[in-house]
Amino acid sequence: MPPLARFAGTAALLLATTSASASLPPPPSAVDLAQQGQDPAWTITEGLTTEIGPRMAGTEAEAAARRWAVARLQDMGFANVREEGFDMPVWVRGTEEAWLTGPFHAQKLAIAALGNSASTGSEGIEGDIAYFASFDALAAAPDHRVKGKIVFIDHKMQPTQDGSGYGYYGRGRFTGPNVAAKKGAIAIVIRSIGTDAHRNPHAGVTNFEPGVKPIPAGAISNPDADQLVRQWQRAQQMRAKETPLGYVAEALRMKLVLTPQNLGTRKSGNVVAEVPGSDPNASPVIVACHLDSWDLGTGAIDDAAGCGIVTAAAYHVKSAGQPRRTIRILWAGAEEVGVFGGKAYFDAHGTEKHAVALESDFGADRVWRIDFKLPDSAKALSDRLAAAVMPFGVVRGRQPANGGADIGALVQAGVPAIDLAQDGTRYFDLHHTPDDTLDKVDPAQLRQNAVVWSAVLAILANSEDSELP
Amino acid sequence: MPPLARFAGTAALLLATTSASASLPPPPSAVDLAQQGQDPAWTITEGLTTEIGPRMAGTEAEAAARRWAVARLQDMGFANVREEGFDMPVWVRGTEEAWLTGPFHAQKLAIAALGNSASTGSEGIEGDIAYFASFDALAAAPDHRVKGKIVFIDHKMQPTQDGSGYGYYGRGRFTGPNVAAKKGAIAIVIRSIGTDAHRNPHAGVTNFEPGVKPIPAGAISNPDADQLVRQWQRAQQMRAKETPLGYVAEALRMKLVLTPQNLGTRKSGNVVAEVPGSDPNASPVIVACHLDSWDLGTGAIDDAAGCGIVTAAAYHVKSAGQPRRTIRILWAGAEEVGVFGGKAYFDAHGTEKHAVALESDFGADRVWRIDFKLPDSAKALSDRLAAAVMPFGVVRGRQPANGGADIGALVQAGVPAIDLAQDGTRYFDLHHTPDDTLDKVDPAQLRQNAVVWSAVLAILANSEDSELP
Repeated sequence: MPPLARFAGTAALLLATTSASASLPPPPSAVDLAQQGQDPAWTITEGLTTEIGPRMAGTEAEAAARRWAVARLQDMGFANVREEGFDMPVWVRGTEEAWLTGPFHAQKLAIAALGNSASTGSEGIEGDIAYFASFDALAAAPDHRVKGKIVFIDHKMQPTQDGSGYGYYGRGRFTGPNVAAKKGAIAIVIRSIGTDAHRNPHAGVTNFEPGVKPIPAGAISNPDADQLVRQWQRAQQMRAKETPLGYVAEALRMKLVLTPQNLGTRKSGNVVAEVPGSDPNASPVIVACHLDSWDLGTGAIDDAAGCGIVTAAAYHVKSAGQPRRTIRILWAGAEEVGVFGGKAYFDAHGTEKHAVALESDFGADRVWRIDFKLPDSAKALSDRLAAAVMPFGVVRGRQPANGGADIGALVQAGVPAIDLAQDGTRYFDLHHTPDDTLDKVDPAQLRQNAVVWSAVLAILANSEDSELP
Repeated sequence: MPPLARFAGTAALLLATTSASASLPPPPSAVDLAQQGQDPAWTITEGLTTEIGPRMAGTEAEAAARRWAVARLQDMGFANVREEGFDMPVWVRGTEEAWLTGPFHAQKLAIAALGNSASTGSEGIEGDIAYFASFDALAAAPDHRVKGKIVFIDHKMQPTQDGSGYGYYGRGRFTGPNVAAKKGAIAIVIRSIGTDAHRNPHAGVTNFEPGVKPIPAGAISNPDADQLVRQWQRAQQMRAKETPLGYVAEALRMKLVLTPQNLGTRKSGNVVAEVPGSDPNASPVIVACHLDSWDLGTGAIDDAAGCGIVTAAAYHVKSAGQPRRTIRILWAGAEEVGVFGGKAYFDAHGTEKHAVALESDFGADRVWRIDFKLPDSAKALSDRLAAAVMPFGVVRGRQPANGGADIGALVQAGVPAIDLAQDGTRYFDLHHTPDDTLDKVDPAQLRQNAVVWSAVLAILANSEDSELP
């Protein structure tokens, strides 16, 4: 059988056990696990989260995950399996406590420090809350509304299928702390960038401009933010009775203890593996995910599943016969805290030719759209790809592909890209929270990912030199 | 207008804004809050959870909640509003940490100590896990399978509409620690008695028999229990390879740090308020809820909502005109840790006549069934009640009413009881977790409760002496 025909058989077999389901699955039973044992996307996702769990960039857990990855990729028969190390600055969380301390009975909040947050010291700090409905409201505020206070940014994220709200709502986390610090805030607390209603804060990195002194910065869960807002509204009403002309939001007080630390420069690394192509002159196809995770959950949807998906696709293509182009698998390190792995890959390999780059880093729910950013020479190729994924419920998008964080530098440098866009409707319920655990992965939707990726990768890895660079 | 006719008008008005919804509501916006401001069930639930929050029995927070309750009940125009104090033993949690320490990479678990758990000391303890699929499996096990080990009880709770699984699954928490202690376990960890899939453990009390030395006892969240089970299965497989004949479950290790304390005897109390009846010789109707809560959440569904519901019903009946019988409202203290408030009420008032007792302590979702435990003289009365609640989607049950924890001693002593059974399908997603917060209360379903309770209470408070004792 020619490779593609053999692959089609594999895909049909996989699909036979696939059924779409948008609801949260029950945790897999032992029987489920055994039945899913043959599927590499599941095996990798289950194994990495169970045997390693949280794997914060630059820590011993991430190093253990690299060793695990090398062993697993070698076991699966990939070639040139290797770690490619790099150095990076490491930040780790410490004690994390927050209370609303007045004017009502003191109440504890569920909080997580943002990556790169400064420490309050072990004694903590206490201050008045300056409320802002959004990042834009904070950005527009005069300094005196902020100076000496603990800034709070409200603005509840709403879910979208394509995840397009992340950039908009996310500004409160990405740059809110920097803006608050420049205006003289003593700390900042944001409503989590998340769409759920559980007492689990959403972690994530923030960045301060050079020259701006970092301040303590944390995210509280949505129910805690709701509570803060109710208390703030009440406090305003109480003050309004005393001073009917004054807009006084300072009556609500918060105590904050956050003791994260910068550990200095530590080792991290990427793990790379290959399916060697039959044509040594053909440029490789690169498929990426990231190996590190935030530390609160076990990094199941972010991004063990992504590594499972891209690796399963490469495995299925390899099993169907040697492709013409080399497939290079990149399990990037240290994505969450600043895409250090993606940058290190580009520094090492950016001058090499790459035919096309794809990344899976948006959970484990089904692929619903395919987007392209390809040279004109690939028009017929993109039609073949769209036709190949159509039977699996995937529509053809009308916007250019975006790529992904770890292949971002490659795409920026002109490498073609394809997005297999996943359904993100519930992604930000779980993103960067303690709830990012294996039970949130729907095995049926994970299999759909593996099948769609396999179909796409089989075509790409056998594409012509006249189609891709 | 006669009182009942006036009440019917009130009920119709309330119902006009009621619509059934079984799905989780979005958090109430400020606009919602303003619109719901008139409904006492909401006002009480929102106010108690916002201004006081967690209110563990015997703590200053519970005392603050009593002061809040007295002020609120007086504001609402109730008579004879008072605290009735009692003493109780107080247990409070300390540090709570657990790790799976081997044979895989160490992973932290989300754990909460069970009420009355012993302390591990600040250094913690580490031991092999002895796995049991259920409480029954633990109870049947020979001592040598348990001695010197950390017992784990699996057995995932499944939701039921009437909550009937609580007694069955709950044995793992209620008496599992006592059984494990008697068999020589050094500690016990159970899968939370809960139906959700979030990283929030379910707290709750356990009890050791006199003469049994308490051991450290905790509950881990369902995703953490899933993780433990996966690691345990792997560990077994690994050992099985070495010793193919041996059933060796001990390879999985756990470290546990739980430092709860017994604070000795402290003050708690009930809050009682009345709607005085027009007939001083008629025995009162008692409606109960509990004011204390577990400490991880803000006690919204357990049981601020119950206090809101029974008090709203009494308020609506009072507003419609003076009833014949006195309505006595009991906001019991210290229910969660041993029903100390209910027992104190019975010690103080058990010899007084009570016409009938009702309690609301099963969340804030809609009433779906009415059950009776009434004397034969109340046959016509029960028919009137069933007819009154029928328009609100409530069916007539065929089992005797159960009562409720805080009125349990009264019912045991022969006081008639009626249950307005709430839909508990999602109750054990939230029960005793950090997630028991106001956003989980569906305002529409809460209003249905207030309406149904008002209809029932109006009839009961105007019932004849020939019908109820």
